[in-house]
Amino acid sequence: MSESNSQEQVAVVLPDGSELEVDADATVEDCAYEIGPGLGSDTVAGKLDGDLVAKEQSVYDGAELEIITDQSEEYLDVMRHSAAHCLAQAVERHYDDIDLAIGPPTDEGFYYDFDNLDIDEEDLAALEDEIAAIIEADYAIEREVVSIDDAEDRLAGEPYKLELLSEFADENDTVTFYRQGDWEDLCAGPHVDSTGEIGVVELLEIAGAYWRGDEDNTMQTRIYGTAFEDEGDLEDFLERKQEAEKRDHRRIGNEMDLFSIQDVTGPGLPLYHPAGKTVLKELEDFVEDLNKDAGYDYVETPHVFKTDLWHRSGHYENYQDDMFIFDVGDDEFGLKPMNCPGHAAIFQDHSWSYRDLPIRYAENGKVYRKEQRGELSGLSRVWAFTIDDGHLFVRPEQIKSEVEAIMDMITDVLETFDLEYEMALATRPEKSVGSDEIWEKAEKQLESVLDSHGHEYDIEEGDGAFYGPKIDFAFEDAIGRSWDGPTVQLDFNMPERFDLNYVGEDNEEHRPVMIHRALYGSYERFFMMLIEHYEGRFPLWLAPEQVRVLPISDDNLGYAHRVANEFDDFRVEVDGRDSTLERKIRAAHDDRVPYQIIVGDNEEADGNISVRDRFEDQEYDVEIDEFRAHLEAEIEEQRTEPDFLQDE
Amino acid sequence: MSESNSQEQVAVVLPDGSELEVDADATVEDCAYEIGPGLGSDTVAGKLDGDLVAKEQSVYDGAELEIITDQSEEYLDVMRHSAAHCLAQAVERHYDDIDLAIGPPTDEGFYYDFDNLDIDEEDLAALEDEIAAIIEADYAIEREVVSIDDAEDRLAGEPYKLELLSEFADENDTVTFYRQGDWEDLCAGPHVDSTGEIGVVELLEIAGAYWRGDEDNTMQTRIYGTAFEDEGDLEDFLERKQEAEKRDHRRIGNEMDLFSIQDVTGPGLPLYHPAGKTVLKELEDFVEDLNKDAGYDYVETPHVFKTDLWHRSGHYENYQDDMFIFDVGDDEFGLKPMNCPGHAAIFQDHSWSYRDLPIRYAENGKVYRKEQRGELSGLSRVWAFTIDDGHLFVRPEQIKSEVEAIMDMITDVLETFDLEYEMALATRPEKSVGSDEIWEKAEKQLESVLDSHGHEYDIEEGDGAFYGPKIDFAFEDAIGRSWDGPTVQLDFNMPERFDLNYVGEDNEEHRPVMIHRALYGSYERFFMMLIEHYEGRFPLWLAPEQVRVLPISDDNLGYAHRVANEFDDFRVEVDGRDSTLERKIRAAHDDRVPYQIIVGDNEEADGNISVRDRFEDQEYDVEIDEFRAHLEAEIEEQRTEPDFLQDE
Repeated sequence: MSESNSQEQVAVVLPDGSELEVDADATVEDCAYEIGPGLGSDTVAGKLDGDLVAKEQSVYDGAELEIITDQSEEYLDVMRHSAAHCLAQAVERHYDDIDLAIGPPTDEGFYYDFDNLDIDEEDLAALEDEIAAIIEADYAIEREVVSIDDAEDRLAGEPYKLELLSEFADENDTVTFYRQGDWEDLCAGPHVDSTGEIGVVELLEIAGAYWRGDEDNTMQTRIYGTAFEDEGDLEDFLERKQEAEKRDHRRIGNEMDLFSIQDVTGPGLPLYHPAGKTVLKELEDFVEDLNKDAGYDYVETPHVFKTDLWHRSGHYENYQDDMFIFDVGDDEFGLKPMNCPGHAAIFQDHSWSYRDLPIRYAENGKVYRKEQRGELSGLSRVWAFTIDDGHLFVRPEQIKSEVEAIMDMITDVLETFDLEYEMALATRPEKSVGSDEIWEKAEKQLESVLDSHGHEYDIEEGDGAFYGPKIDFAFEDAIGRSWDGPTVQLDFNMPERFDLNYVGEDNEEHRPVMIHRALYGSYERFFMMLIEHYEGRFPLWLAPEQVRVLPISDDNLGYAHRVANEFDDFRVEVDGRDSTLERKIRAAHDDRVPYQIIVGDNEEADGNISVRDRFEDQEYDVEIDEFRAHLEAEIEEQRTEPDFLQDE
Repeated sequence: MSESNSQEQVAVVLPDGSELEVDADATVEDCAYEIGPGLGSDTVAGKLDGDLVAKEQSVYDGAELEIITDQSEEYLDVMRHSAAHCLAQAVERHYDDIDLAIGPPTDEGFYYDFDNLDIDEEDLAALEDEIAAIIEADYAIEREVVSIDDAEDRLAGEPYKLELLSEFADENDTVTFYRQGDWEDLCAGPHVDSTGEIGVVELLEIAGAYWRGDEDNTMQTRIYGTAFEDEGDLEDFLERKQEAEKRDHRRIGNEMDLFSIQDVTGPGLPLYHPAGKTVLKELEDFVEDLNKDAGYDYVETPHVFKTDLWHRSGHYENYQDDMFIFDVGDDEFGLKPMNCPGHAAIFQDHSWSYRDLPIRYAENGKVYRKEQRGELSGLSRVWAFTIDDGHLFVRPEQIKSEVEAIMDMITDVLETFDLEYEMALATRPEKSVGSDEIWEKAEKQLESVLDSHGHEYDIEEGDGAFYGPKIDFAFEDAIGRSWDGPTVQLDFNMPERFDLNYVGEDNEEHRPVMIHRALYGSYERFFMMLIEHYEGRFPLWLAPEQVRVLPISDDNLGYAHRVANEFDDFRVEVDGRDSTLERKIRAAHDDRVPYQIIVGDNEEADGNISVRDRFEDQEYDVEIDEFRAHLEAEIEEQRTEPDFLQDE
């Protein structure tokens, strides 16, 4: 921005691909005014090469520029960032001697971290009132560029801010502050123009958080909040949030005694209790049937390997930080973060002819990845998880038919659980291994599979793995959230690294292509998703307890057990407690048992049963055999909801 | 042996419990002569308090003494030890500048370790001739007591012997040498009187062995041999040895592509290939059925736990050296060497009423134990193995019925595989936890179970675990070898350490008893035992490939595939190679496939098949349905041998 440059011109690239020539010292806002005065006055912030920046930021030659207005998707982030400042301002009005840390926007709102803040959930209402007053006051939010030295003076007594400043100082001569009323914060922005532009703010909860996410640092107090343009949006959000909380797999997992993650056994290391293992086992068996029908052979590999294997596979170079590695004597060993190298080692232990291919290995392989401990959560983020893994070794011309077969298996899974999904084909990235020819052939084969599959899909150009193109699926659950799902990845790299070969019809050695695939992805994430999707009300075939027999009185206990015996090839329990029928019904309901069989004197006299489902429908005097036959069919067909009484 | 003691008397205890008074300086041989002159002259060595000693060894007051003659079981050990000396003497006659290490007898013969010996298998014949000459020469084998200083002089230039000597010197003023002809060795003995008393010697193989079994030491050359009193015994031994080698699971495992243990993946960490995993899966399913019928619930626990768990369980104190332990951040984690603490943690996560017990958890849990790398071998000694583990939490009065049920499950397993077995009850050791009352009650319950079980059993007094009494089984395989098998262990300790409770009928908290049990023990050892027991010729229900279809010519290939499709619920393959029928039959035989279906023009014309079994019996023109029905029955009934043709 020196004067000598003031007449120079730079060109920025607009979203439609056109170029805009502006003065070399032009800001984002200047550019917007160049495009049109309306856009200029609406400008809230900008995006330069994908980074959100303040509208006062200078542009540079060749930058891709996008103007952010209150109509942009990113506007909510900007407003929430300003809301975080209002929170910090409110906190400093109510509490003395606290230290400010950081306060960014998030996917669902914002937070601000404070040290030396002693606060309870019940104090949040007062802070919300204070924030409302700050918004009401409509303070202008002003950006100021400040020298490092001046910044240091302004931040005296704020140890965390000074720590951040000293890092900025390594690469910058100035930093920016944002001021609203009598409050200011070291901040890169961007922000809305005044606090009055912030819609509604709601504070959500208080949590502990380590400074910079590092367990070795101080535990600070984090206040979560959210902001929306109007009450209606906020209410929608709170409703969705409540719905998600009602479905929280950690709470339901505990209520249904599905699994536990305990302090004494360690973080991110789930223990599956009988009920949870029952569901997992059904999921395993379902995939096992699909695998067998599709010609997969199961293999079994250990969880520990010598790091020689990880060197060969490339995981040592590229994945070491996420691995648990330890020494035994003079050798180094590592827990497996993936199953593929073990399967490649099995393939390599044999010599193969083109007639033997495709070779298809399957394993429910438990892998271990060292995620940040602070990020571990229930079954959704764990150290130990099991992949329903499959690896195929195919001739290049077999890619299409094999991927087609895999797509059919994935479709089976998605239909069985009645899940909506999205698909994307990720193609060759700039850095990649393998010849142009094989990439082109492979991508064409994948495209042709996707085209004939019928379901629409995105193409994510350049988003493939360095070792090959891939198809990724995302599930959508009952409340519209998206989860990583199945994946099909071609791999031209691992066969090179393991020097895998087969003898072709020409009697020469050829390199097979490896296909990595998973139908669920990880059992843990899929299980979590199912718990939340079904709110713990699993389809009959998955339900840990399928039928509960409730004797109306103690007199009927013997008959209840005889009836249970008639159903002993199902997962059946008798509620033999000395309690009222009403209570037993409530317990069965709370335990999410699909069907209750109620037996009293009438049923006992007739040798019949009464059946009640979890929708509270009830039918009297049903033949045992009739109900048996229904249960068998409902399980066999993997129906998603109990429909014995709906049938009638 | 000082003169002042020469008239004092000491008493030794003979095997029949009687006491023998002898002079205080009497030797083992003197005692034998006291008993009778015949025994005196027959004496080869003695056993003092269970330790094998030279006949020249002085006895001491109160010692239990046994006289060893050529009629004793231990005689073979003594003779083989002398044979090891003959080997070393022969080696020193044939090779210069070698260093002697050690040369003990073993269960199957003896070995001697040498350093700086360059030798091949083909050189063993010459050494055998030399040993025969030494035996023929009938050198007297003379024992000499030597001062440490003199011993040092005699052993000059023998670094390993000097290292041993310096250790003996810490606790002894003298050592013994044994001399035969012009050769002598530092040795505690005992030995036979002359080389002529050694029967026949056969050298078996050459192997590498670390000095003192420690990988950090020099790798030496070990020559294995064996010795027997006569040719006949040697031949019997060699036949049994050959039989064992023919059955070696490592060779068969490779031939049948069941599993591999690779350098790159690491020692003692087996990878199961499709064929091996197929057998394992059948074994798992079999136990799963037994478990389900017996009311077990499957659980799943990770392979890594925070060491907090190992501190709580006591493994950290008592088992640490065998565990793989590593740090993650500030915490310590360990791979599980046993599944019990994880199961105790699951039990502890819930509150229980007396009505809920017994609780029975099952898991095919892969555990990791850090065995000495030098001792790892095939599937018999590994780092990673899977236990078909079960843990029960029972009220004390339920011990008997639960152990009875477990014994029935074990009997099912033993009968299914047609295995002979031995049983032993191990009772309270001196150091143990738990009240007298509970031990007494528990042992009585176990005894009563064993008595009503009918099969004879040993009582091993004081051999129980410190935490409870146990019943151990040992299998006997087809060639008479014994293998550790199922086990049932009561545990009063773990429930204390985990503070496990249930609420009794009296509304008070009570401590459950834990029962550890395994039906196979470890899958790896059981699988290894089955491979060797069946010589890879698995019963039909276990066979990785159950039926192979052999088309007589290429013209019958289409029909062969149609036939295979008729059997697609079995594990069936078609040998479609361009090869003669004779060769295909040989291949199927070598691959140990239970049944071959042979199809030629005649079969195709009639829509029939010919069936051939692995005993080389063959029948023509069998109906497909008839054979199907037989296969189903043979699998359903888990028959140990193919008997379709035996049926006829």
